[in-house]
Amino acid sequence: MMTTQTCPSAVVPGMPMQPSQGDFRSVMARLPAAVNIITSDGPGGKVGMTATAMCSLTDSPPSVLVCLHEASRTTRAILQNGQLAVNMLAAGSEALSAAFAGQQGLEMAQRFGLSDASWITLVTGSPVLENSIGSFDCTVSEHHKVGTHFILCCAVEALHVGPEKESLMYHQRQYRHL
Amino acid sequence: MMTTQTCPSAVVPGMPMQPSQGDFRSVMARLPAAVNIITSDGPGGKVGMTATAMCSLTDSPPSVLVCLHEASRTTRAILQNGQLAVNMLAAGSEALSAAFAGQQGLEMAQRFGLSDASWITLVTGSPVLENSIGSFDCTVSEHHKVGTHFILCCAVEALHVGPEKESLMYHQRQYRHL
Repeated sequence: MMTTQTCPSAVVPGMPMQPSQGDFRSVMARLPAAVNIITSDGPGGKVGMTATAMCSLTDSPPSVLVCLHEASRTTRAILQNGQLAVNMLAAGSEALSAAFAGQQGLEMAQRFGLSDASWITLVTGSPVLENSIGSFDCTVSEHHKVGTHFILCCAVEALHVGPEKESLMYHQRQYRHL
Repeated sequence: MMTTQTCPSAVVPGMPMQPSQGDFRSVMARLPAAVNIITSDGPGGKVGMTATAMCSLTDSPPSVLVCLHEASRTTRAILQNGQLAVNMLAAGSEALSAAFAGQQGLEMAQRFGLSDASWITLVTGSPVLENSIGSFDCTVSEHHKVGTHFILCCAVEALHVGPEKESLMYHQRQYRHL
């Protein structure tokens, strides 16, 4: 990487910086991101993890993408299953988000058994969260490995719409609602 | 695409739906997304456009991805220039966002000349918005065409941090702040 000048390691307003991993994370933390639980079921197992790196890809045909770390058990299962669901979390789903982020050390079966969540299936069989603000049930149409992550391109096979609620957001390393 | 049942075309809470383009957009509109202006300069020209389809890709090395429509003049210029900047907009940048979304019919030079924006360059020469909440100055390391869109994988060469402000968000087809 190139830099035009020597830069401090801390985040200083108005200063370009040499992009260390920590500096990059500090700037990325300024971006409010909606919180999702990515789920899958099939030969690779029933899995789920919390993720913010998701966005719309094309609307004709409907498709989204998610970025997942190569070392994750959930990523490997999703690639084997060839399908996933993106569940956009509603405000109030903080505990569910933490559980699927692995912060409580729960096994997959325990995560899906939590009492504050109800799961259904649509087309692919991937677990769809009934109380999400919206879910995309998808087949993985292609994937690309970039560094430590896989970009999964996902064709949307079915939609689910939950109750009208605010969204669960992650911003400056804290949960927020919008 | 498969569907498990015949579904209404309107968005109905709790119902899986056949994913038409309109239905997909309705569900995606429920996802609050941070608003960015993607810029570039080089042999392909000085260009910029508003986009929400951006997310973190890897943090080691720092990289982000953006999804851009193949038919966009800005997309073609970025691919030719091989570099871009992602400028995350602050609350209050609604007019700038609209201008770079093409809603005012302004030429590129007019967009960059708007009085409420000040542009600098860091490493690549792509225009960096001084009053963004944060900007990533990037080289395009690889790109993948998926349907109508390109996924651009972008290696972050330099960071910029603007003033501490709320973010400009787009949610349910309206601007919001967080």
